Amino acid sequence: MKISKLLKNPSGSKGEPHSNRIVVSSRVRLARNLQRFPFPGWAKKADRQKIIETIRPVVADLPEMENAAINEIMDQFTVVDKQVLVERHLISREHAAKNFGSGVVIDANMNLSLMINEEDHLRMQAIFNGLELESAWKMISKVDNELEETLDFAFSQKLGYLTACPTNVGTGMRASAMLHLPALVLSEQINQIIQAVNKLGLAVRGLYGEGTEASGNLFQISNQTTLGETEAEIIERLRRVINQIIEHEENARATLLEKRALTVNDQVGRSFGILTNAYSMSSKESMNLLSMMRLGVDLGMFDEIVRSIVDELFIASQPAHLQKSISRKLNAEERDLLRGELIRDRLSLLEKPKIRKIQPPESNEEKA
Amino acid sequence: MKISKLLKNPSGSKGEPHSNRIVVSSRVRLARNLQRFPFPGWAKKADRQKIIETIRPVVADLPEMENAAINEIMDQFTVVDKQVLVERHLISREHAAKNFGSGVVIDANMNLSLMINEEDHLRMQAIFNGLELESAWKMISKVDNELEETLDFAFSQKLGYLTACPTNVGTGMRASAMLHLPALVLSEQINQIIQAVNKLGLAVRGLYGEGTEASGNLFQISNQTTLGETEAEIIERLRRVINQIIEHEENARATLLEKRALTVNDQVGRSFGILTNAYSMSSKESMNLLSMMRLGVDLGMFDEIVRSIVDELFIASQPAHLQKSISRKLNAEERDLLRGELIRDRLSLLEKPKIRKIQPPESNEEKA
Repeated sequence: MKISKLLKNPSGSKGEPHSNRIVVSSRVRLARNLQRFPFPGWAKKADRQKIIETIRPVVADLPEMENAAINEIMDQFTVVDKQVLVERHLISREHAAKNFGSGVVIDANMNLSLMINEEDHLRMQAIFNGLELESAWKMISKVDNELEETLDFAFSQKLGYLTACPTNVGTGMRASAMLHLPALVLSEQINQIIQAVNKLGLAVRGLYGEGTEASGNLFQISNQTTLGETEAEIIERLRRVINQIIEHEENARATLLEKRALTVNDQVGRSFGILTNAYSMSSKESMNLLSMMRLGVDLGMFDEIVRSIVDELFIASQPAHLQKSISRKLNAEERDLLRGELIRDRLSLLEKPKIRKIQPPESNEEKA
Repeated sequence: MKISKLLKNPSGSKGEPHSNRIVVSSRVRLARNLQRFPFPGWAKKADRQKIIETIRPVVADLPEMENAAINEIMDQFTVVDKQVLVERHLISREHAAKNFGSGVVIDANMNLSLMINEEDHLRMQAIFNGLELESAWKMISKVDNELEETLDFAFSQKLGYLTACPTNVGTGMRASAMLHLPALVLSEQINQIIQAVNKLGLAVRGLYGEGTEASGNLFQISNQTTLGETEAEIIERLRRVINQIIEHEENARATLLEKRALTVNDQVGRSFGILTNAYSMSSKESMNLLSMMRLGVDLGMFDEIVRSIVDELFIASQPAHLQKSISRKLNAEERDLLRGELIRDRLSLLEKPKIRKIQPPESNEEKA
């Protein structure tokens, strides 16, 4: 069990520091299945056992998995440990519910995570900070090739890779990026953007993927279709759309500063004030307030060093991470208390945000 | 015009410092009318002129009005100046709408305010900090006796003093106290209290009297009836009910500290955080947050010196007071900005609230 090791890396760094202020992380995952075995949802216990016994040693033997951070079967984790992995985006929420016959192998840098007997026999992902879809694709593609030398993946000449759910058939690929879009939310343009992105055949989701709500102004953009395009085309199309969203967010930020600096000063100031003084705080509220602090960093209202503190708190203030930091089991109220304390402590030495200049108002020099 | 003099007394002190943490101020007003003149609402211009010419010199001659702070007819005030007087509770909102033929005389200490041609020919009030109903009654009763030596008030042996509105006939007296009841609001007992008080024949109103909403957890309690009881009985009954409300508020505070110290720490902390960091703030929000700070002082979470800063801000952050502090006419947005700045400035050197001890939670030492 190396969850503790993972917790010692509180910044959640996965590779290089952020290359982009708006794109938090990029991820590519591939779904693969062994030939001649039923999909995990249909497989009997014995089959699932055989599947993991076939895949796990091959995965563990990958050069990328030397000194793997985690190589474990799911029933060896506590519920909290599994949730920590979910909060790090290293396993899916669905995989966290698995026990016997499922497993996960994660590399030392935590860029690479391979889930065995999730919805498919093998779900492998590469995740990087910043806009790094190509890097993620390159890494996971290499792993895929290495595995294929040994493993016999179910593949149809006509359809491509076969998967448990037809929405993954073909490339079996889901490429996604996590975007931080506070200005599009503040200026109420976000729904328009989501609709436009949906029309382009891409999905927009919350922090933890399908079926989760957006909080902290974080949105996951991913491809919907896996059939009829090559992997490179999917990634290229996603990257193009993401670049457009980045442009919209940057325009929205510029407009905010030009026309509504007051709102920016107020929102960033209040968020800082609440984070540094609240005694108890829900996960959702902390995400939303930290998002405003992050916007403040982007807009030069805080020193650049504050970015890493905020990014660290985004992760450290998640429920399972909080629970792991203390030996006693916490209920929701105690967790909110501990979250408040953690955030107050980490931000206690920061200076107040620098105020952004406001355009002078229209002259109205009437006498009172 | 001595509004500027009034503004130099930003603490709004009217007499002694607060004798009571829960009762902010006590007030007694009497309604009187001259015989043989129509009530102001029916009086023609010439009559109103005669009324004020009859009353004003007598009022100005009162020993209490030596060095009066204000002795003015209403059309000599700007709209903002009138509003300043309303915010100090020195004239009614109705009187602020008056112009020709109406006036006001206010003593040097601003305990005593006499409005001429309000709803009645003469409305006179005495206002004191703290629970000082008897002091207020004593002062206004003395003034009433002094005026009666010269002025001929409309009086019926059967009904008592005659007034424009039948609800004031009899004593013509309205005695009231402004109570700060944050714990009854936080613990959601306030509506119950209001209903009980109403059943006892007393009225509960917001900060500026009839028809105004409560903000800043401030509630005005006053007698409803002026007929069938002596002034002393009215005041005694009001004082008894107020003492009961004080007891309820104190119990609610004790229960909050015992059972919900977390909520207290959180609410006081957040209020402090927002007040010291918000860039823009509405009047209503500032009242509510300052109310939490005041509760914090009462509960020992801030030094006692913070009380006067908070009480000063309660007044200085009102719209007209803000407008008077600057030469240029402000719109609502600019006022909110100025309010934010004023509050941030005044609170900038304060230390964070001291946290109140929380009762240890029930033991639940299950393993994570």
